[in-house]
Amino acid sequence: MTFLKDGWYCAGWKKDVTEKPRAITICGEEIVLFRDADGRAVVLENRCPHRFAPLSQGRVMGNVIQCPYHGLEFDRSGMCVLNPHGQKVIPPRAAIKSYRAEEKYGAVWVWMGDPAAADPEAIISLPFIEDERYAVVTGYFHVKANYQLLNDNLLDLTHSAYIHTTTVGLPPDIAATVKYTVRSEGNVIRSERFLSNVPPTPQFLNLFKEPLGDIYSYLSWFPPSSMLLDLSVVPHGSPKRPIEEPTDDAVLIPGAHLVVPETQDTAHYFYAVARSAAIDDASKTEAMGKLSYQTFVQEDAPMIEECYRLMGGKEFYSLQPAILESDRGGILARRILAKLTS
Amino acid sequence: MTFLKDGWYCAGWKKDVTEKPRAITICGEEIVLFRDADGRAVVLENRCPHRFAPLSQGRVMGNVIQCPYHGLEFDRSGMCVLNPHGQKVIPPRAAIKSYRAEEKYGAVWVWMGDPAAADPEAIISLPFIEDERYAVVTGYFHVKANYQLLNDNLLDLTHSAYIHTTTVGLPPDIAATVKYTVRSEGNVIRSERFLSNVPPTPQFLNLFKEPLGDIYSYLSWFPPSSMLLDLSVVPHGSPKRPIEEPTDDAVLIPGAHLVVPETQDTAHYFYAVARSAAIDDASKTEAMGKLSYQTFVQEDAPMIEECYRLMGGKEFYSLQPAILESDRGGILARRILAKLTS
Amino acid sequence: MTFLKDGWYCAGWKKDVTEKPRAITICGEEIVLFRDADGRAVVLENRCPHRFAPLSQGRVMGNVIQCPYHGLEFDRSGMCVLNPHGQKVIPPRAAIKSYRAEEKYGAVWVWMGDPAAADPEAIISLPFIEDERYAVVTGYFHVKANYQLLNDNLLDLTHSAYIHTTTVGLPPDIAATVKYTVRSEGNVIRSERFLSNVPPTPQFLNLFKEPLGDIYSYLSWFPPSSMLLDLSVVPHGSPKRPIEEPTDDAVLIPGAHLVVPETQDTAHYFYAVARSAAIDDASKTEAMGKLSYQTFVQEDAPMIEECYRLMGGKEFYSLQPAILESDRGGILARRILAKLTS
Repeated sequence: MTFLKDGWYCAGWKKDVTEKPRAITICGEEIVLFRDADGRAVVLENRCPHRFAPLSQGRVMGNVIQCPYHGLEFDRSGMCVLNPHGQKVIPPRAAIKSYRAEEKYGAVWVWMGDPAAADPEAIISLPFIEDERYAVVTGYFHVKANYQLLNDNLLDLTHSAYIHTTTVGLPPDIAATVKYTVRSEGNVIRSERFLSNVPPTPQFLNLFKEPLGDIYSYLSWFPPSSMLLDLSVVPHGSPKRPIEEPTDDAVLIPGAHLVVPETQDTAHYFYAVARSAAIDDASKTEAMGKLSYQTFVQEDAPMIEECYRLMGGKEFYSLQPAILESDRGGILARRILAKLTS
Repeated sequence: MTFLKDGWYCAGWKKDVTEKPRAITICGEEIVLFRDADGRAVVLENRCPHRFAPLSQGRVMGNVIQCPYHGLEFDRSGMCVLNPHGQKVIPPRAAIKSYRAEEKYGAVWVWMGDPAAADPEAIISLPFIEDERYAVVTGYFHVKANYQLLNDNLLDLTHSAYIHTTTVGLPPDIAATVKYTVRSEGNVIRSERFLSNVPPTPQFLNLFKEPLGDIYSYLSWFPPSSMLLDLSVVPHGSPKRPIEEPTDDAVLIPGAHLVVPETQDTAHYFYAVARSAAIDDASKTEAMGKLSYQTFVQEDAPMIEECYRLMGGKEFYSLQPAILESDRGGILARRILAKLTS
Repeated sequence: MTFLKDGWYCAGWKKDVTEKPRAITICGEEIVLFRDADGRAVVLENRCPHRFAPLSQGRVMGNVIQCPYHGLEFDRSGMCVLNPHGQKVIPPRAAIKSYRAEEKYGAVWVWMGDPAAADPEAIISLPFIEDERYAVVTGYFHVKANYQLLNDNLLDLTHSAYIHTTTVGLPPDIAATVKYTVRSEGNVIRSERFLSNVPPTPQFLNLFKEPLGDIYSYLSWFPPSSMLLDLSVVPHGSPKRPIEEPTDDAVLIPGAHLVVPETQDTAHYFYAVARSAAIDDASKTEAMGKLSYQTFVQEDAPMIEECYRLMGGKEFYSLQPAILESDRGGILARRILAKLTS
């Protein structure tokens, strides 16, 4: 299986990208990420071309990064600009790969393929993350599973009634009343779910709205593996509200789920969850953060890691999975990724 | 090396098989074991055919087990009997392998091969485990070595004088007076040892009998790797007593050693040790349990794991081992297993 | 990559070789090292030829070592001299490899190749380790990297100004004034560095001499991977002093760096650091030991392990490293090793 290099991947939340360099591996390539003296996010190959030291352990000095082992310095284009030793000759091979980076929606995005092909407009649209009308929590966790299993997980939310019973899930009998459609628009997948007149539930949603009314849960998947979960709870019988137009009679809870393949067997998961109601209530923000962590990190991740372990290194289809109707979104995503990487 | 699938393997002690499902890997296959509402031990493939979740993390509901991830339910034959989502269609692939299980001698036994070939009469005979005339301790441990090294270990008890010096071993000079024969009867190996007029020893045996007298130590090996160690201490000059006829002038100490290949590189080891003397003395039962644990888990297992590590992944005979007379039993077992799996 | 078997490797410091056997792996071969009743250092294959038990867990009894598992005994030539069981027959295969060992300069040296080819005169000359005019500290650590990266590290000391800033390094601007030559004499590499009129530095060197004056740092590399770092600090303008002729106006700080390949991916590192000044000052000896540990174990080793991890299992040249002028010594060592193992 090959990675989709021509794609934007979240490499970190903006606030975590500072003059202290950090390493992260995306699509099997170890990169170093830092902010230079001009305030720009810089992304370079992490391995020094001289003796292979990790630049992430070096120092950012103005607009260059210094190798921690022998002191070679590299600029943001990846060229070595100083060899401090002897005659100070810089051999032609003393250069590393540089990557196109963009800062948008509170995150730093990296294009892992040919920089010339990178179009910042292709980044998934997530303005709610920096919208002052929303209270936002962000997070990160690491998963020991192929990233496509995380796509599958989010594109089929029927699992919520089973593994999220104490967090965001509804009881199976209520969850079973969901009406949903799944369709693709070019390379984007839309999975739209609607639940009518939902009774009170003890967990997540009732934190923000009581009684619940109707629930719209619209998931949009963009290749390679970025998702927007546009969740809104509205009075029974009233229409869905767009994220950019929050109203007082509804609670909008948009979430970003940014899955990033680290290796074939591991993935990064950046998430942001926001709400339009009671945005100044710090205790609700804390509860939202705790429930998000519990849902994604303590419930989803261990289950997905076990599934991946049980696949025993085999390719998904070679295991002849039983495909259910509810798998439509996941299957479409796999088809789009196969097409884009072929 | 292939596993002998057509064989009965201990998958757990009866008391540990409850409505709470447990996973165990035998011969490289991960299975789930539970007791259904009818009280039957059920053994199924542990991997859900839908998205590969571990059924062992699911719930037993009456006579079905529910997948923890998306709620599919499977009956004891391995057929999916409920898809709770959408139109509730169950695709033909939604089925898992089921295994033949038997409860006998306080244990649950699983036949890893074709269920049609399974004959419960072929299970090694160990009635002493449930015989009220005996006090019994049972145990389990995990070993990081190929299971055949555990066969070798038990089929050559000369190691006792070296690694079990503070537990069940006799001093080398006494151990060297042993008379023994090793023979095969079909696919069963009998290794019979006799020690005459053994002086007092500080450990295991003197817990139960003083003076010792003569010791009969009869080991029977049944393929794939189940062993009965029929140990008895009798007055000097008197004959061996059969396990089913304990008498007051002798101490019978039968033991079951049930070795179960987990993978090529790891094994399960279930053991039961019983005695016919002072069976109501709880302190002696506790001492028997402690000494058994020390002997098998703290003395045998680490040595066998080191031997396996030093084999460096090589096949046994490719290392051109020096074969001693005392290896006869182990060599016969290897020959029988090679024949049965060829 | 193959190991250079025809070479002397440090297998331990003399004081650590006792009648209690110890295992160590060199060039991928696991050996056992002990001192017999005659006081000789004995080196044998660690794996018993019978059932592959580690002899290092056995007992030394006079001039033989007894296998911990079944009690077979082996003499210093590796022949089995006792099978304690049954008819006590010793099969011809009951023999293990024995290795040529020498004790010299406070260490035990093992020749991993054909014993007939071993010449003790080829051991690197390190008499200062046992010279009473020096205070000596010795140490050992384990490195998760191919041993050649340790050669590279020592043959290019320009890294000191970057990773040893709080221990043995000089500031980059002073370090940059170094004059040096690198040359090979047969299979030996001489890397000679000279620094004139060095101002006070807060760390290592000022422990022993103030003001510093001139610094001579002469490194000699002997295949496979033994190095002598002949460091001396002399009054400004005066010549280098030989190690065997310490004088009061200079501080001689010779060091031995004995790198030993354990596997392709790991190495042993034995070191000895000595000084000719204030040799009775225990607090200075303690400080010298602490600074050596910090320099080699806390600064060098983690950096080299990270470099090796980033090589991702690839061969050095296949990564097309940028070669600097300062790499000359390391490149020569790689060339000599390639020649000697081809």
